[in-house]
Amino acid sequence: MTYRNYLDMSRDQLIKNLEQKVTKERLKHMISVEETCIRLAHLNHYDAKKAGLAGLLHDYAKNLSDSEFIHLIDKYQLGEELKQWNNNIWHGLVGTYKIQEDLGITDKEILQAIRYHTTGSSQMTLLDKIVYVADYIEPSRDFPGVDKARKLADISLDKAVAYETAQTIRYLVKKRIPIHPQTLQTYNAYIHHLNKD
Amino acid sequence: MTYRNYLDMSRDQLIKNLEQKVTKERLKHMISVEETCIRLAHLNHYDAKKAGLAGLLHDYAKNLSDSEFIHLIDKYQLGEELKQWNNNIWHGLVGTYKIQEDLGITDKEILQAIRYHTTGSSQMTLLDKIVYVADYIEPSRDFPGVDKARKLADISLDKAVAYETAQTIRYLVKKRIPIHPQTLQTYNAYIHHLNKD
Repeated sequence: MTYRNYLDMSRDQLIKNLEQKVTKERLKHMISVEETCIRLAHLNHYDAKKAGLAGLLHDYAKNLSDSEFIHLIDKYQLGEELKQWNNNIWHGLVGTYKIQEDLGITDKEILQAIRYHTTGSSQMTLLDKIVYVADYIEPSRDFPGVDKARKLADISLDKAVAYETAQTIRYLVKKRIPIHPQTLQTYNAYIHHLNKD
Repeated sequence: MTYRNYLDMSRDQLIKNLEQKVTKERLKHMISVEETCIRLAHLNHYDAKKAGLAGLLHDYAKNLSDSEFIHLIDKYQLGEELKQWNNNIWHGLVGTYKIQEDLGITDKEILQAIRYHTTGSSQMTLLDKIVYVADYIEPSRDFPGVDKARKLADISLDKAVAYETAQTIRYLVKKRIPIHPQTLQTYNAYIHHLNKD
């Protein structure tokens, strides 16, 4: 796979770059999401290169420090409200600015899919859905409901988005963790795709 | 109990009025919420009359038709977005306008507590919390978690608000029902009051 259309380096060079940015374990997950994105792209007749690159880069900013994220929120004027959140939210919504800065990626679809890979959004493109779902179902993932999510992803990305978002909200509520409004928007926009069972 | 400070009729006259507006079963629930509000008011050193009246009236608009709610949303310019919701949301957020029109109640605290009795809000007054919690725990309520909510209400209204909101979200997700953004705001604002257990 070459990503030269979107990036000024080979995939091997990119992997070497990523090794400096994230942990070994994290990179393994990112490569697994890349492979799952390529599979879902083929299944849904989408450009496998764009999907693969978005998947490979989705957690690029995961190891940024909180202060780096606060700096980016100020620099790009993303709003004070966002500062109340944390790495879980920032590495998607804010991380894309770091990816643009470091790697010079300008493709809007790729950046948007990475931006919304944790929260989703109310109007997801095919690529947004591929990355969002691939992150949840890649083969090394192991948590309650992941097999159902995998089955749904083979039938309908909309159903998989809805199920994944519902499961995420249930998990967050069980753990008493705040829920980002963007996650609720995704839930409200996609939940009608699931049967009321 | 007399509500003459806030209302131009006796409690008996109000009950007769309500009998024309809601079902017998609904009125029974409203009286039960009234009693629970009075109890919670005493427990939390709040004006029992205001709490009782807010509790008695909280479901005043429950039997309004959808077209009546749409009419009120237009009349009071409450925004197109609100029209996407349904009776469950409208009877609180919109119902207060009907109460003002029909009964001439002007007390802002009472109207606000009724307004937010289903969704809560991120900054609830003591009366808001009393009505929100009373509606959930009144003695005839019977669903998973209601006993825990009752126990929490005796300890802390903030904890009860947090628990009730978490349980409500879990229920809605389980049933694949959309969740109003105001409900999420309540969850995010109060969830830190609960232990992460």
